[in-house]
Amino acid sequence: MDALLEAVKFNEKGLVGVIIQDYESKQVLMMAWMNRQALELTISEKRAWYFSRSRNKLWLKGETSGNIQKVRSIRLDCDGDAILLEVDQIGGACHTGYRSCFYRIEESGAWKEDGEKVFDADAVYKK
Amino acid sequence: MDALLEAVKFNEKGLVGVIIQDYESKQVLMMAWMNRQALELTISEKRAWYFSRSRNKLWLKGETSGNIQKVRSIRLDCDGDAILLEVDQIGGACHTGYRSCFYRIEESGAWKEDGEKVFDADAVYKK
Repeated sequence: MDALLEAVKFNEKGLVGVIIQDYESKQVLMMAWMNRQALELTISEKRAWYFSRSRNKLWLKGETSGNIQKVRSIRLDCDGDAILLEVDQIGGACHTGYRSCFYRIEESGAWKEDGEKVFDADAVYKK
Repeated sequence: MDALLEAVKFNEKGLVGVIIQDYESKQVLMMAWMNRQALELTISEKRAWYFSRSRNKLWLKGETSGNIQKVRSIRLDCDGDAILLEVDQIGGACHTGYRSCFYRIEESGAWKEDGEKVFDADAVYKK
């Protein structure tokens, strides 16, 4: 495990960027950040843990919403500063209720929403 | 175009993270960074432009190698700080000669190479 972690280039904040992709559909679901501990937990538990930059703490994806990510593979890029997870995503990845966080697509110089809503964010997060 | 750019949250260095995915296979090819000008060029030319943090300059992907990325779609995530491109990738995306930069996969706590080499990096970059 030490050699594995040594190949990862955490940035000046101790974080590495993570791309999360659906294992079956290959849809890109979200981008997040991990610190060393989040990566260790993700490897050992095969559930996705991240580091929340806004809340400044470790975060088990799906802890509040139940939308857990079961990890199927973990990849590292050529220069060691980006990780790619393939996951089985329960429910939706996005806190807005969309399946993917990338629900806006560029059309003629503007963003248009075209994503798939899979849960009611207000109900899930008790807003 | 101004409203489109306003929705993008560039970080303290003026950059936004970009995930690049193959349009046909949906394979994630690389992660890179764009500044505002790179995003404007990418939208107008439908070829991927990035900002190189190591060389501190704009960078047309494929300028040296010929491995241009023709852009098929541009997506923005929920909080505006990550972009997803779908591209037609000529040759390989990775400077090492692999099709994807994510050619290392975790197996039993170590990284194992399993990617597909599609060009000779030494020949292409005249090392």
